[in-house]
Amino acid sequence: MKYVYGIDVGGTTVKLGKFDLDANLLKKWEIPTNKSENGIKIIEDVLEAIQKETPDLSEVIGYGFGVPGPVTNNYIPIAVNLGWKEYHLKNEFSKLVNNSNIFVANDANVAALGEAAYGAGLGKANVAMLTLGTGVGCGIVVNGEVVEGAFGAAGELGHVNVRPDNPFKCNCGNEGCLETIASATGIKNTYAMLLKNYTGKSSLQQYNEPSAKLIFNEAKNGDELAIETVDYAAYYLGYACSILSVTTNPELIVIGGGVSKAGSFLIDKINNHFQKFTFNACKETKIVEAKLGNDAGIFGAARLVLNND
Amino acid sequence: MKYVYGIDVGGTTVKLGKFDLDANLLKKWEIPTNKSENGIKIIEDVLEAIQKETPDLSEVIGYGFGVPGPVTNNYIPIAVNLGWKEYHLKNEFSKLVNNSNIFVANDANVAALGEAAYGAGLGKANVAMLTLGTGVGCGIVVNGEVVEGAFGAAGELGHVNVRPDNPFKCNCGNEGCLETIASATGIKNTYAMLLKNYTGKSSLQQYNEPSAKLIFNEAKNGDELAIETVDYAAYYLGYACSILSVTTNPELIVIGGGVSKAGSFLIDKINNHFQKFTFNACKETKIVEAKLGNDAGIFGAARLVLNND
Repeated sequence: MKYVYGIDVGGTTVKLGKFDLDANLLKKWEIPTNKSENGIKIIEDVLEAIQKETPDLSEVIGYGFGVPGPVTNNYIPIAVNLGWKEYHLKNEFSKLVNNSNIFVANDANVAALGEAAYGAGLGKANVAMLTLGTGVGCGIVVNGEVVEGAFGAAGELGHVNVRPDNPFKCNCGNEGCLETIASATGIKNTYAMLLKNYTGKSSLQQYNEPSAKLIFNEAKNGDELAIETVDYAAYYLGYACSILSVTTNPELIVIGGGVSKAGSFLIDKINNHFQKFTFNACKETKIVEAKLGNDAGIFGAARLVLNND
Repeated sequence: MKYVYGIDVGGTTVKLGKFDLDANLLKKWEIPTNKSENGIKIIEDVLEAIQKETPDLSEVIGYGFGVPGPVTNNYIPIAVNLGWKEYHLKNEFSKLVNNSNIFVANDANVAALGEAAYGAGLGKANVAMLTLGTGVGCGIVVNGEVVEGAFGAAGELGHVNVRPDNPFKCNCGNEGCLETIASATGIKNTYAMLLKNYTGKSSLQQYNEPSAKLIFNEAKNGDELAIETVDYAAYYLGYACSILSVTTNPELIVIGGGVSKAGSFLIDKINNHFQKFTFNACKETKIVEAKLGNDAGIFGAARLVLNND
């Protein structure tokens, strides 16, 4: 039997997926991310975990990695959450496993590839994905392949400026980034901003700092201020989708991440704004919910290998 | 000797380029575009023109076309300027020349490919181009290939909404499109708008409706109102470049078309705004002037063939 491993390296855990050559997930599990010594141990731990499951590495045809940072040609200039700097992951890991069939891509890009190939994308060739979590991730798939970009920064749509007068500062140093509005943090920021000038009565006012989840729940229950807060995010997400539609013109835009659990309540709002913003020829682009959840990364990482097989 | 033909089909003329297999342009010329009978004669005229130059068509290894409309898989749903509707250009032309090595793409995309491969791009793999003429065209090249998109609408950045409160209506029916601000027409629109509230004295006031070219000339001469007008366009072009930088993350963004003849005067202004808008990891993207002028289309069309050879 031959296998492919999909490995999704995060700041807290490394997710591993063992796949057959038809991309069936045979087993998945996690190991803690060992960030000591600038993350140099991470790949040793990955190897150990894989060898416990597949002692004979000649059964593994290749390894795909998703990593939290920019990637160009399997090289990682920096991944702050892991401690990696100027890290040749492919070269280093290939020495350990004595196999050079190794592919590395940015984690948001890999998740988009996973959803495009095996999740909400249903194998469609042109797909983009927005992942709404603590930040806003984005990955773009063109003709079935991840777009990496010249500096590994393709799909950094979380940092597109959507509002020059936006009052929230982004972690990247800029202002007006989509991430400051449409992430879980952004939704909390927006609520706090709108609350200041709100003269009505909101069910959210009983909480000191309501979470994004709570804000969505109250919006679904019809609370006016909560709806206003969600609409604010949906407006800029609809705009971001219109940007994707006139750049790489995907057939589907997949919305994933924790915030996307609001489901069609959020997706419908995004789509309404998208339809107003976008160019006629792009109006058929569908905005849909992600399907693979936290497994998108391991599926996409495995796909990196299978795409090149 | 073997040849490739690059054919750039416009609403007024069809440009033809005869290339050797190393993409050297051996001859170029134009024929009028015959739009009678819904443009059905256009490909016959193209064939006649090519056969005069190369009577033995077995010497031609392939034909590339750039056309003014969306294209998916060599099929043209509509090209209003030519009268084509649901037109299978590849199939129709291959019957005439008895050769199926034919590639069709949108004209702005083909121009971007020409500049990427043989012009300002110097062969770089990841390039985008904005063409500032009567409208704003855009083409995106990823890994050396044109991005077509699911509905043939990739690179329609002329119709990205950059200003929801923009007072100019776009030909596409929307408002706020980049094209209404940064095209030659957009620059004239902006001048007229800014003139209304201008209390100073401008050298442009002696003209009834100054052209974009005249506005640029006076801006270069230091006229305050003209500079303000150019800055307005440059601001939104810088923003559009920042959008490109966080989507496909090109190494170079090429600015072409009639308006780009303003040269470094315009490019420097665009770059200043771009640097303020864009994400850190994208700041190395260079904004440069186009090099091939009106030949970008035939070069790019030839490249479609050579890319697949």
